[in-house]
Amino acid sequence: MSAVFQRLAVIGCGLIGSSLARAAAASGAAVSISLYDADASVLARAGALGLGEAAASASAAVRDADLIVLATPVGAMGFAAEAMAAGISPGAIVSDVGSTKRAVIDAVGPHVPDHAFFIPGHPIAGTEQSGPEAGFASLFQGRWAAITPLPDPRPAYAEAAERLAVFWSRLGAKVETMDPDRHDLVLAITSHVPHLIAYCIVATAEDLEQVTEQEVVKYSAGGFRDFTRIAASDPTMWRDVFLANRDAVLEILGRFSEDLSALQRAIRWGDGDALFQTFSRARRVRREVIEAGQDTPSPNFGRDAVS
Amino acid sequence: MSAVFQRLAVIGCGLIGSSLARAAAASGAAVSISLYDADASVLARAGALGLGEAAASASAAVRDADLIVLATPVGAMGFAAEAMAAGISPGAIVSDVGSTKRAVIDAVGPHVPDHAFFIPGHPIAGTEQSGPEAGFASLFQGRWAAITPLPDPRPAYAEAAERLAVFWSRLGAKVETMDPDRHDLVLAITSHVPHLIAYCIVATAEDLEQVTEQEVVKYSAGGFRDFTRIAASDPTMWRDVFLANRDAVLEILGRFSEDLSALQRAIRWGDGDALFQTFSRARRVRREVIEAGQDTPSPNFGRDAVS
Repeated sequence: MSAVFQRLAVIGCGLIGSSLARAAAASGAAVSISLYDADASVLARAGALGLGEAAASASAAVRDADLIVLATPVGAMGFAAEAMAAGISPGAIVSDVGSTKRAVIDAVGPHVPDHAFFIPGHPIAGTEQSGPEAGFASLFQGRWAAITPLPDPRPAYAEAAERLAVFWSRLGAKVETMDPDRHDLVLAITSHVPHLIAYCIVATAEDLEQVTEQEVVKYSAGGFRDFTRIAASDPTMWRDVFLANRDAVLEILGRFSEDLSALQRAIRWGDGDALFQTFSRARRVRREVIEAGQDTPSPNFGRDAVS
Repeated sequence: MSAVFQRLAVIGCGLIGSSLARAAAASGAAVSISLYDADASVLARAGALGLGEAAASASAAVRDADLIVLATPVGAMGFAAEAMAAGISPGAIVSDVGSTKRAVIDAVGPHVPDHAFFIPGHPIAGTEQSGPEAGFASLFQGRWAAITPLPDPRPAYAEAAERLAVFWSRLGAKVETMDPDRHDLVLAITSHVPHLIAYCIVATAEDLEQVTEQEVVKYSAGGFRDFTRIAASDPTMWRDVFLANRDAVLEILGRFSEDLSALQRAIRWGDGDALFQTFSRARRVRREVIEAGQDTPSPNFGRDAVS
């Protein structure tokens, strides 16, 4: 298959950015790849891994690129866009992989020149690990990639969005076009609030005076270890997500807290039927997740082989 | 190695009971195994799987057994103990695998005859799946098994507890003796509250009017799918756990809710430092879980291979 883009510029070489570079190279979706990261050590490691040509600056990295993807924490995307703006070629597509879309549009949009096409995006894929070494080419295989185009009337804009969708498909992703605000609400429930809850329960456990941390770790196979895995995700990235998607996260958190209070009350009053009914609903959702190819049915992910 | 027990009776043939039968057979820790389950279909399936001799009643199953293990939901253990009481041989050890210990002691204790030894226990191992087909012999490998002996002054009681510990070791578990109330508090944070939270967020997501269930499933790779896995666990078992360990669960839930409110407030007021500090602590706990052999460091448990 022929390449979708001549030159891909990846700004931010962590888990997602480095996976993007690997997937673009492995699939032949881009002919050449340039890299930049504000952290010199990360950039050097990404270069040493052979992920692309390490550039001296963001504006140098995007020069001659026909696809530019911002893969920094969302709080840094505005600065990254401003820094690279002068180097953006006419006709280039500027996209991103941020977990929130409205805040990225507000921060990045003003810095994208009129001769380029800003098409925000978000591949819903990741692991709990961080850094260029943690990336891998198959990360996006079978995952959904959301594209949230702006209301831009230019016919060339629609063509550019189509080309970006083809690019993600070549990386193995399933592409869906979404409204940015709807994206932010859907991700608040499917990703942001779950991460906040995982961080919270790990912190609550660590703060307990009556139970030692050693005991918590020792008996973590009962469920807690899954939360530690989710809560091992990059703290800077997640801080930015919560600040950027404040309204949707607060809306979902409010509902979750109400629902948790109802379960707490059922426990206090011994209402087993209420508990059973809530617990039973979850199995159906689980079945749908597996049928949709978003998880494997294998129990416990082979953890019995740990020791 | 010689067998630890001549005849093991397993009462309740679900995930844990069937794994126990498999592990005892595979390790040679028991010479013969008898089975009973109040659900005739479950009992027939366990028998057909060759896990042991299916008995016609609980009291028939325990006859001639020198180790009897209750593996029913904790809410059924009192009835199971009463039902089998007449069949318990002098000198037999009666134990269980319940996730809460104080409630089991109160419910089962009165039915164990004086000529037997009641030594409650809890292997901290499991998966989200249920039923005799879901069990496997290596489930307890490298996991902790808690034993919570009663204050019984008989020298033979201490010997019986030691023999039960040897049995669990032969199944691959690491054995720890604990006070029952401490067990219940430690498990509230490492297992019970995490499960309640997982059930709750899945229910909250399902109830959302603004976001369709199809959208939730589609984008679940962002974190939500891990909660659906935990929340796929057996609803009857978990209903009983929360009713049985009410006080400890309510204590931990109260702390969790306070901590979640503090994070919610930090999001509302844009306090990124508070978020970052909480998120950063979690990585250290995660490292300890991996170093303690309670999870693998592999990212995402190979889920990239799903599609």
